[in-house]
Amino acid sequence: MYKSEQLVIRLKYLIEQGTWRAGDKLPSLRQQTQYSGFSLITVLNAYQELQAQGLIYAKHKSGYFVADPAVPEASNETQQKIEINSIVFNYLQATRAEHIVAFGSAFPDSQLLYDGKLIQLLAQRARLQHRDQQTPNLPPGHLELRKLIAQRYAMQGIATDPDDLVITSGGLDALNLALQALTHRGDYILLQQHSFYGAWQAAERLGLHVITLPEHAELGFDLLAFEQALQNYPVKVCWFMLNSQNPMGYTVNATLKQQIYQRLDQYQVYLIEDDVYEELYFTDKKPIAIKYFDQQQRVLHCGSFSKTLGASFRVGWVHAGRFSEQIQHLQLMSTLSVNPLIQETLAAYLAHRYYEKHLKQLRHQLQTIKQQYIHYLQQHLASDCQLIHHASGYFLWIILPSRLCCNQIYHHLLSQHISIAPSTLFNAQQQQDNALRLNCSFAFNSRILQALKQLIDALQAPTQRIL
Amino acid sequence: MYKSEQLVIRLKYLIEQGTWRAGDKLPSLRQQTQYSGFSLITVLNAYQELQAQGLIYAKHKSGYFVADPAVPEASNETQQKIEINSIVFNYLQATRAEHIVAFGSAFPDSQLLYDGKLIQLLAQRARLQHRDQQTPNLPPGHLELRKLIAQRYAMQGIATDPDDLVITSGGLDALNLALQALTHRGDYILLQQHSFYGAWQAAERLGLHVITLPEHAELGFDLLAFEQALQNYPVKVCWFMLNSQNPMGYTVNATLKQQIYQRLDQYQVYLIEDDVYEELYFTDKKPIAIKYFDQQQRVLHCGSFSKTLGASFRVGWVHAGRFSEQIQHLQLMSTLSVNPLIQETLAAYLAHRYYEKHLKQLRHQLQTIKQQYIHYLQQHLASDCQLIHHASGYFLWIILPSRLCCNQIYHHLLSQHISIAPSTLFNAQQQQDNALRLNCSFAFNSRILQALKQLIDALQAPTQRIL
Repeated sequence: MYKSEQLVIRLKYLIEQGTWRAGDKLPSLRQQTQYSGFSLITVLNAYQELQAQGLIYAKHKSGYFVADPAVPEASNETQQKIEINSIVFNYLQATRAEHIVAFGSAFPDSQLLYDGKLIQLLAQRARLQHRDQQTPNLPPGHLELRKLIAQRYAMQGIATDPDDLVITSGGLDALNLALQALTHRGDYILLQQHSFYGAWQAAERLGLHVITLPEHAELGFDLLAFEQALQNYPVKVCWFMLNSQNPMGYTVNATLKQQIYQRLDQYQVYLIEDDVYEELYFTDKKPIAIKYFDQQQRVLHCGSFSKTLGASFRVGWVHAGRFSEQIQHLQLMSTLSVNPLIQETLAAYLAHRYYEKHLKQLRHQLQTIKQQYIHYLQQHLASDCQLIHHASGYFLWIILPSRLCCNQIYHHLLSQHISIAPSTLFNAQQQQDNALRLNCSFAFNSRILQALKQLIDALQAPTQRIL
Repeated sequence: MYKSEQLVIRLKYLIEQGTWRAGDKLPSLRQQTQYSGFSLITVLNAYQELQAQGLIYAKHKSGYFVADPAVPEASNETQQKIEINSIVFNYLQATRAEHIVAFGSAFPDSQLLYDGKLIQLLAQRARLQHRDQQTPNLPPGHLELRKLIAQRYAMQGIATDPDDLVITSGGLDALNLALQALTHRGDYILLQQHSFYGAWQAAERLGLHVITLPEHAELGFDLLAFEQALQNYPVKVCWFMLNSQNPMGYTVNATLKQQIYQRLDQYQVYLIEDDVYEELYFTDKKPIAIKYFDQQQRVLHCGSFSKTLGASFRVGWVHAGRFSEQIQHLQLMSTLSVNPLIQETLAAYLAHRYYEKHLKQLRHQLQTIKQQYIHYLQQHLASDCQLIHHASGYFLWIILPSRLCCNQIYHHLLSQHISIAPSTLFNAQQQQDNALRLNCSFAFNSRILQALKQLIDALQAPTQRIL
C-alpha cells in the first residue's frame, strides 16, 4: 500500500468519526507533513485523493476544508481560481525518474532533436568567447539572433523589426512575461478548456480570474462560445494555442483564426499566442499564426527552440511589439538574461540555415513514428477507448470510457515505470474529464513496444479501484 | 541639450503655470510617451529628474504626482515602498552600449573569467549529448552538480545534503525564489541600507514592506540598529550580503556574524544570505557564511557561478534545506529548469578540481589590479572625495562631497562612454546619498587609464548643474 493511501484511510476515518466536520479547515500541507511524519508529496497525494473523492475541497489561498456530503460544492462552471500547482508539481516530480518511458513528456524524444552541426557551432563559439570583449548580456537579447528570428517572421508575411522581439529563457518565460505585462491582479483571462498547465499556474500566481472555453468537437476552437465568453465576461487577455494544440493536438484552420482575430479586435482584447509547436507541422505549408492578422498590435506571439532543439537550447522569444520595453523591464526583475553563448550559437546556426534542414528531418521522423503509433493503437486499443489524432505534432489524445479513470491509469502505469499525462493536468474542471495525452515521438523499439502493450493492457482491464 | 532636458523644461513650465497643481496626477509614463513623442527612457529620465528636484513624487503603483512645494513629502525614514525598477531599467539600458568602459558593471572583467579547461569540457559534453538518453531536466537540478556543491559546503564546515540544494538560473533567480518561498504580500523584510537593487525590485514585485538598516561606519553591519529594527517591526525575513558586500565592498567579521545569527534565532526571523561574491576574498581563509551557524534552518544561503565563470555559466543555487520542495514548486511555475548542458559541464569542471585553480588565479589577478586602482586614485582623486576600499572583492566606493552630485557624474561620464554606478541605485533614500561604486577589475591599459582620468576630472571640476 502506498504511504498516501495509509494517510487517506487515516484522514477518512477522522472525517467519518466527526473529528473534522463539514466546513472545518484541515491542517495545512506543511502542518500535516509535520504531524504525520510523511513527506510533502505523500500528504499532497492524500489530499488530492480525498478531493477527488469529494470528501474535502480546496479553497484558493486558504487551504483544504471538509466537504458537506449533502451539498454539492458551489462552483461556477467557467470562472475558476484553482490550485493546480500542487497537481502539476506532483506529476512532474513523479515522472522525472531516470528509467521511465516518457509517454507523459511534453518534449519530443531528445534523440530526434540532436544536430551535430549545432553542437559543432556551440564548441566553436565557446572557444571564441575569450577573444571577444563580451557585451553586457541584457534584455532584449542578442541582436543577431533577433534579426534572424525577425526574418523568419517576415517569411511568413509577418513584418517584424528585431526590436519587436525579446529573447527569453524558454517559451514558458516568454508566456509568463507577456501575461504579467498585460494584466493586473483581479483581471479576467480566457483559456482553452484544455490548456498547458503553465497557463493555469501563471494565472494563479498573478491572481487572475480564469474563464475557460470548451473545445469544438470538429474544429478544435468554438467561435460561438468564444463570442459568448467575450460578451459575458470582462476578458482582458486570451491565452490560446492554436497550432498542434497542447494537449489535444488539433490545429485551427486559417479562416477560423482570422475570425478569432476579428473578435479580439472588436472586443479590444489581447491575445497571448502560445506557438511553441509551430514548426512541427506535417503539411506542405506552415500553418498561419493569428499574429499574421494583427494590424492592431493585439497579439503577443510566443515561440521557442526547446521543442525543436532540446533543453540545452531552451531559448524562447516573444514578439512583443509596443510591449517590448515593458517586458524587458519585467525580465530585469526576474530571469535577467539568457545564456549569451547559447544565443550566439543559435544565431550562427540560423544564419547557416542549418535549422531549416534539421526541421525538415525532424518533421519527417515525427510523422513516420506517429503513424506507427496510430496504426498500433488502432489495432490494439480497447474498442470503447477513443483515439483522437490530428495531422501535426506528436501528441495523441485517448478518451477513456467511464469504466476507467485517467488518474488511476496514470498511477498504475507509473508503478510500472511508464509516465503518461492524465487530462486532469490540463483542465481545472477535473471531474468532467477522462482522457490521456500520449507522447508518440519515441521510435519503436522493444522497450517502447513493451510499454505500449502495458498501456493497452491497463486500458483493457476493468479498473480495480485502489481504495 | 538632452531630449529629457527639453521635456523637463516643458513639464516644469506646465507645473509652474498651474496647469497641474499640487496633488495632481501626471500622465503615466506610457501616456507621456505617446503625448510627447519621446521614448519611454527619455520620459523616465525627465520624471526622475523632476522627482530629484522635488517637483513631483512617485506613489507606489499609482504613478507620479505634483508635489506641494510648501509641504515636504511625508515619508517614513525606514519603511518604504519604492519604484526603483524604473531607475534600474534606465541605468542598465544606458550602460549596455557596446563600446563603453564598464566601471558601472557588477561583473568582473570577462577576460579574467575565461578558463580554457571549462570551454574544453563544454565542447566535450556537448558532443556527448546525443549518446546519453537525457533525463528530464527539472528541479532541483543535476544531481552530480548538487553533490559537488554540497561537498564545497562541507569543506567549510556546513553539513549539506545534495537534496538541500536547488540549482537556479543564476543568483538573482535563487534570491527571488527564496524570498517568494518565505514571504506573503504585506510582510516586512529588512535590507541593508545600501543593497543590490535586485532586492528592492523583488520586494516591490512581491508587495513587501521594506525596512532598511544603516551601515556601521567601521564594521559594515550595525548590530544595535539591527536589534532595534527587530524590536520595532514585525520583520519576517532579512536579506543581507555580508561578504564583499555589494555595493560598498565590506566583509563582516565572524564574531559579528555569529551575533547576527543569535538575533535571527531569538526573534525567529529568516535570513536570505546573498553570498554571490563569496569566492572573491584575498585573505588566506575564506570568510565564513552565517549559514555556518545555522542550527535552526533559518538561513537560505544563495550562491552563483556567474561572478567567477561569467554570464555563459550563469548558474546559481540556494541552500534551501527544508524549503527545498517549496522552492522547486515555485521554480516549476517560472524559470522551470536550468540548461542541462551547462549544469553537466559545471559538474565535470568541479569534479576535476579545475575550479579551485581558476579561483586561485582569479583572486590573485583581481587583487593585483585592485591595488593599482587604489594606488592611482589615492594619488589623483580630488582631496574632498573619500575612497573606501576593503580587503576583498572588486568594488571601490567613492563618497562625494556636497559640491558634486552622483547622478550628474553618472550622466556626465555616460556621455563620454564610461559607465559608473551612482549610489542612488542601491538606496531608496536617495536624497541622503552621494557616492559612486567603481568596478576595479579591468586591467590597466591606455583605454582604462584614459577613462580613469576622465573620472578624476569629472570629480575635480566644480559641478555645473545641467539645468
